[in-house]
Amino acid sequence: MIVPRLCLVGTGLIGGSLALALKRAGACAHVAGFEVNDDTLRTALAAGVIDSGHTRLAEAVAGSELIVLATPLGAMAGLLRELALLLRPGMLVTDVGSAKGSVIAAARANLGAHISCFIPAHPIAGTEKSGPRDAFPEMFSGRVTILTPLPENTAADVAKVRALWEAAGATVQVLDAAHHDRVLAATSHLPHMLAYTLVDCLARMDEREEIFRYSAGGFADFTRIASSNPQMWHDVCIANRDNLLAMLDEFTGRLGELRTAVERGDGRTLLEIFRRAQSARDAIAARRKGTKA
Amino acid sequence: MIVPRLCLVGTGLIGGSLALALKRAGACAHVAGFEVNDDTLRTALAAGVIDSGHTRLAEAVAGSELIVLATPLGAMAGLLRELALLLRPGMLVTDVGSAKGSVIAAARANLGAHISCFIPAHPIAGTEKSGPRDAFPEMFSGRVTILTPLPENTAADVAKVRALWEAAGATVQVLDAAHHDRVLAATSHLPHMLAYTLVDCLARMDEREEIFRYSAGGFADFTRIASSNPQMWHDVCIANRDNLLAMLDEFTGRLGELRTAVERGDGRTLLEIFRRAQSARDAIAARRKGTKA
Repeated sequence: MIVPRLCLVGTGLIGGSLALALKRAGACAHVAGFEVNDDTLRTALAAGVIDSGHTRLAEAVAGSELIVLATPLGAMAGLLRELALLLRPGMLVTDVGSAKGSVIAAARANLGAHISCFIPAHPIAGTEKSGPRDAFPEMFSGRVTILTPLPENTAADVAKVRALWEAAGATVQVLDAAHHDRVLAATSHLPHMLAYTLVDCLARMDEREEIFRYSAGGFADFTRIASSNPQMWHDVCIANRDNLLAMLDEFTGRLGELRTAVERGDGRTLLEIFRRAQSARDAIAARRKGTKA
Repeated sequence: MIVPRLCLVGTGLIGGSLALALKRAGACAHVAGFEVNDDTLRTALAAGVIDSGHTRLAEAVAGSELIVLATPLGAMAGLLRELALLLRPGMLVTDVGSAKGSVIAAARANLGAHISCFIPAHPIAGTEKSGPRDAFPEMFSGRVTILTPLPENTAADVAKVRALWEAAGATVQVLDAAHHDRVLAATSHLPHMLAYTLVDCLARMDEREEIFRYSAGGFADFTRIASSNPQMWHDVCIANRDNLLAMLDEFTGRLGELRTAVERGDGRTLLEIFRRAQSARDAIAARRKGTKA
C-alpha cells in the first residue's frame, strides 16, 4: 500500500485510469474524487473510478496522503491556490499535465512554502476519448511517465511518486521540465495541431461530404487524435505556446520544402523525404513492438 | 466465374489482395502474375497470390480476359504502350491507381484504338505495408472502389469491372476522373504528405532520439501512413501534382491561422477549430462504424 487515501482532482480519462490501476495493484485503498460538477462526480462513482465524491476540495483533500491534479492545464493555477490553504504536513501533490513549465510556475506562484511537496509528472499515455467512462486500468502499462522534479523536492518524496506510477504499470523517467516541454511539443502537441487543422480544413471545403465519404482506414487512424478533448488542447496551446510555435515553424518550413519538390517535379527530393520518414517510422514501430513484447 | 484467367501486372499489396479476394469468391480461376523482377514473382507465388509467374508481359497477357495494372503510377504509361501490341478482342484492361487523370492520359496516348477497353478504377483501401506477403483477401470488404469510366467504354464492360470489385467485397461508385483526383488529394494524398513531413521533420532534429522515445500511441497511429511505399507516393505526387499543390496551400493557410491564434493566445479561435474538427472527426468515426456494422 503506497497511498491509503488518494485525492483525485479531476476524475476524467487519465485520472480515472490512474485510480483504477492503483486500486487493481493494491497501491491505494480509497480514492476521493473532486469535481466542481455534481453530474461528473456521479458518472465517476458509477464507473467505479472513485470511492467517494466531493464538490468541496477541502473535503476531498482531508486525510489524503497524495493529491493528484488531473484536470486540463488551465484549471491548475486556481486549484493550487486553494490547495495552499489545505495542505498538511506529509501531504504530497502531483499532476498529470502535458506541459510542465506552466504548472511549475503556477505551483511556485501559489504554493509558497509548500512548494517542496509538489512533484510534477506527466504520463505519456491517453486515447482520443475523455471522461471516466473510458478510463481503464491498463492505460499506463508499458508506457513512460516522466517526472520533472524540483530542486526543493526530497529524494524520498520523488521516490514515492515514482513508486506510484510504477505500481500503475508505467516506466518512470526523469527529465528537466524545459526539455520535457520541447520534446512533447514535437512528439505530441504538434501532431495534435496537424490533425485538428487537417480535419477542420477538410470540413470547411465545399466537397466535404465526398471527402469524408471516400476516406479510407489510413485517414481514420491519421485523424483519430482530432477527436481529443478541445478544452484540454486549448490549454496545452496556451501553456506550451513558445515551444509549440517553434515546432509549427519547423514543420511549416519542411512542408514548404516538400511543396517546392512537388511543384518542380523534383522526384529525387521527394523520394529522399519519403525514404527517411519511412525508415524513421519503421524504427519507431519496431521499438514499440519490442517494448510491448 | 467472372474472369477465368486474370493477368495481374504488379503482384504487390493491392493487386495481391485483389487476386486473393477474387479466388476466394470463385470469381477467377487462374491469376497470371507479371513482374520485371524474378524474385518478386517467386515471393508472390510462395504467398499464393498468383498461379503462374511471368517476366514477359506477352506470356502473362495471352489468354487473359482481364488485365489489372497494379503497379505504382509511374510504371503505367510504359506498360500501356506494351499492352497496345498485345491486346486481343474481348480483353479488358483496368488499373488500381490512386490518381486517375494521369493514367487516363497515358491510356489515351498509348492504347490507340484499344482505348474503349480501358476502364479506370481505384479501390480506396490499403495499409502502410507493401508487397504480396502482406496481401489479404478481406482488404476490400466494406471499402469503396471508385470507377471513372471513359465515354468510349461500353456499359457491359463497365458492368464487368464493377462485378469484379463487388465479388472482391467492395462497394462500387462511379465518379468523374477530375473530381476523383480533387477529392483524393484532400482525403489521402495530403494526409500522406503531412505524415511523411512530420516524421522527416522530427527525424532531422537534434533531439530525435528522445522525441521518438517519448512518443505515445497517438503518435504511432498518426504516423502509420509514413511507413507507406516511397516509390508509390513519389508517383502519386507527380501524377496528381496540381490538386496536391492546391491542398498543400489550403492546409498551410489553415495552419497559419492556427499559428496566429496560438501566438496571440486567442483561446476562442483555438476552441472553435478544435471543436469543429472534433465533431467532424466523430461523425466520420460514427459513419465508419455504421458501415462496418
